[in-house]
Amino acid sequence: MSAKLADVLKTLDKTQEAALDRLFELLRIPSVSTDPAYKSHCQSAAEWCARELKAIGFHEAKVVTTTGHPMVVAHDRAKVPKGMPHVLFYGHYDVQPVDDPGKQWRSDPFEPVVRDGRLYARGATDDKGQTFTQMKAVQSLLATGQMPVNVKFMVEGEEECGSTNAYAFVEQHAGLLAADVVVVSDSHILAPDRPSIVTGLRGMTYMEIEVFGPSHALHSGAYGGIVHNPAQALAEILAALHDGAGRVTVPGFYDDVAELSAEQRAVLAKVPFTPERLHHETGLTVPWGEAGYELHERLGIRPTLEVNGLVSGWTGEGSKTVLPDTALAKVSCRLVPDQDPEKIYRLVADYVATLTPPTVRSEVRLLHTGNWVVVDPESPYIQAAARAYEFGFGKAPVYVREGGSIPIIGTFQKVLGAPAVLLGFGLPDDNLHAPNERFNLGNFYRGMKTAVHFYQELGARA
Amino acid sequence: MSAKLADVLKTLDKTQEAALDRLFELLRIPSVSTDPAYKSHCQSAAEWCARELKAIGFHEAKVVTTTGHPMVVAHDRAKVPKGMPHVLFYGHYDVQPVDDPGKQWRSDPFEPVVRDGRLYARGATDDKGQTFTQMKAVQSLLATGQMPVNVKFMVEGEEECGSTNAYAFVEQHAGLLAADVVVVSDSHILAPDRPSIVTGLRGMTYMEIEVFGPSHALHSGAYGGIVHNPAQALAEILAALHDGAGRVTVPGFYDDVAELSAEQRAVLAKVPFTPERLHHETGLTVPWGEAGYELHERLGIRPTLEVNGLVSGWTGEGSKTVLPDTALAKVSCRLVPDQDPEKIYRLVADYVATLTPPTVRSEVRLLHTGNWVVVDPESPYIQAAARAYEFGFGKAPVYVREGGSIPIIGTFQKVLGAPAVLLGFGLPDDNLHAPNERFNLGNFYRGMKTAVHFYQELGARA
Repeated sequence: MSAKLADVLKTLDKTQEAALDRLFELLRIPSVSTDPAYKSHCQSAAEWCARELKAIGFHEAKVVTTTGHPMVVAHDRAKVPKGMPHVLFYGHYDVQPVDDPGKQWRSDPFEPVVRDGRLYARGATDDKGQTFTQMKAVQSLLATGQMPVNVKFMVEGEEECGSTNAYAFVEQHAGLLAADVVVVSDSHILAPDRPSIVTGLRGMTYMEIEVFGPSHALHSGAYGGIVHNPAQALAEILAALHDGAGRVTVPGFYDDVAELSAEQRAVLAKVPFTPERLHHETGLTVPWGEAGYELHERLGIRPTLEVNGLVSGWTGEGSKTVLPDTALAKVSCRLVPDQDPEKIYRLVADYVATLTPPTVRSEVRLLHTGNWVVVDPESPYIQAAARAYEFGFGKAPVYVREGGSIPIIGTFQKVLGAPAVLLGFGLPDDNLHAPNERFNLGNFYRGMKTAVHFYQELGARA
Repeated sequence: MSAKLADVLKTLDKTQEAALDRLFELLRIPSVSTDPAYKSHCQSAAEWCARELKAIGFHEAKVVTTTGHPMVVAHDRAKVPKGMPHVLFYGHYDVQPVDDPGKQWRSDPFEPVVRDGRLYARGATDDKGQTFTQMKAVQSLLATGQMPVNVKFMVEGEEECGSTNAYAFVEQHAGLLAADVVVVSDSHILAPDRPSIVTGLRGMTYMEIEVFGPSHALHSGAYGGIVHNPAQALAEILAALHDGAGRVTVPGFYDDVAELSAEQRAVLAKVPFTPERLHHETGLTVPWGEAGYELHERLGIRPTLEVNGLVSGWTGEGSKTVLPDTALAKVSCRLVPDQDPEKIYRLVADYVATLTPPTVRSEVRLLHTGNWVVVDPESPYIQAAARAYEFGFGKAPVYVREGGSIPIIGTFQKVLGAPAVLLGFGLPDDNLHAPNERFNLGNFYRGMKTAVHFYQELGARA
């Protein structure tokens, strides 16, 4: 370790407790982006991020208004030697909703607490905690005058609701955001002693399928038996979207799916998704999914179609003998190379139309889309990340394809021509998008070290 | 018309406006029985009914506590000649919920208004308006000293949530409630110029089907493709409960269904359910249902299985990429002679168990049951009702089998040995259990006359 790096790490160590206090502040802001009721909190979280970025040494950090939740952008003017790489860090300050009908949250999702070395809060890992890890790493480099590369931050507030404005923002501010590489800390590694680098993410087509029956809700006795119940019709449509082998039945759905070579599958097979892991993380003993593919392949290289929500008729306590007038499903597809999200929407919409009997009417509405991502494990940036993980976590990382989606990465690749490095510090059981979301504090500290080393690696090899 | 009857009707006419004001008072009490939040309002509605029954001339009217919402019972001590029939009128003061996600109510459901000769409010027809029609008829008879029979009232507060306590109440108070005939005004006639008498009602088995997936809600990217989505699994189960011909697939479901004779079917065929009526009342042009039966038969003499509600995962605005942990359906069966509600529950539960794959777990919970009812059109009570309708509405009634359920009637038949007369004054498009519930004021007044005539017929023929 160089004396300079030792200096930076010492700074990091000294400020750990204070850092956690700062993170708590951010986590207390309920910046749920998908629900309009939380709009002002999203604004507050954006302002908090801009203030923090200024406080840690960025010369410019501003909140930029969009038609949705605001964007935060920051630039440093550190004394970086000419010719060093430009790095754009991307994160998001918005969080998933916390709807908790089963009262599964053990503590207030917006009052962070530490239990057993884990920080519990909505956004703890996705993505406030990870974005903050990067802020602290950059702070230690700036504070010690050791920042070897040019760093920009872009922190958005609509990642959890489709990044509606981020795509256009990147296109409109391509000059401002220009970078050689984009760094994202919004993913997880396999375990604290098993770091991993994500070399692929799935894309996304998020839709609503709504079935319309009678013009108004009816008495189920007075009309039950002569009116096609839209809740039943919706169930019939949804049930028809998969076959018995776990395959999506939408015609053309798999047409553009790139089959991996035996070599590529062999690399991924080094990190199987074990039944033990499934049981530990979900409580389930029997997996489900597409026949002919291993679990890690069903997640990483195969597309899916999921029902994310259902609602129709009477959903309260007790009974109501209603024949509903409508039934709604939230349905999303996770996509892989070379599927096109818009095309998948059209295929699903067309198929649902053919599945809809004349006794009801249906609509398929597109809520948002996102592109899949693949990165080249041989690129110098990924190699730098591999060395950084080895430094921060004490072990060389393995390469995995992730089931999740970070659609904005596709836009960065397209608009800025910059490849992405997914420098994630989460863990698989962090309860993302679920009750009791948490962030392993060990990973918080190891992540800061990893990030510091990564920036130094980028500088050293440039 | 006798001079005495003319007297009674004059009293009715003079008090019409005041009567409407009184009904408004009752309709303003939001006595939603299925939702515990409205418990105190149910108590208020019960107390209102007891006060009103005393005010209109009953010597005794009391609110009886049950483990649920209270029961109202009232007795008169009018100077009725010895040997005249005892009549038990049954109604209910509780109403359906008004959940209005689509904001379809044109006015506050608990602030009654009259538009175009119809009174709009939750409970306007089901059953506050109809119960009140009976109160006014009885009042006019008592006030003029013309009550020819012995009348008791029983007004319950749990009809819309399964009459949980009413069955036991009838059994425990059989002596108090003893009657020769039970009169119920909780049904509809075909049209103001087409009165009808209900000779059959369907029974009910109301259940919840819940599917359990992972131990908590998951990120749909991180697990989508390897975990059986419970919302999808529920859709698959629900879709399997009907075949393509609209028949319920539950093994044994139709085993005990009594097939009607050709003569019986011919009587019912006099009142077909026309496509025009379907379109007028539901906006639908294409009916649905069990092949081999006419629409009025699908409603009146065939059992059904309906999805009354669905809920799972994210149901708010926008998107949430969640893989739900549970999915719930409210499902009810309308039953016909000689189906047994408890047996139907067991058949459905057993079948759902066989439909549930090892990738998820399911539960079928029984919420409540109710027996079907058939009455003999040739009985003297029904004949008296027929003459009363002819008097009140100017036309002889036709006989129909209704699709709805009033399970308590089965209990009256069993415990009191008393046949029931369904003296309903609602209309098919009264929006029962739906937004903009209403009561035709013409039927309110014609209903009072009909009821008065019915009681006098009972007295005259005794």
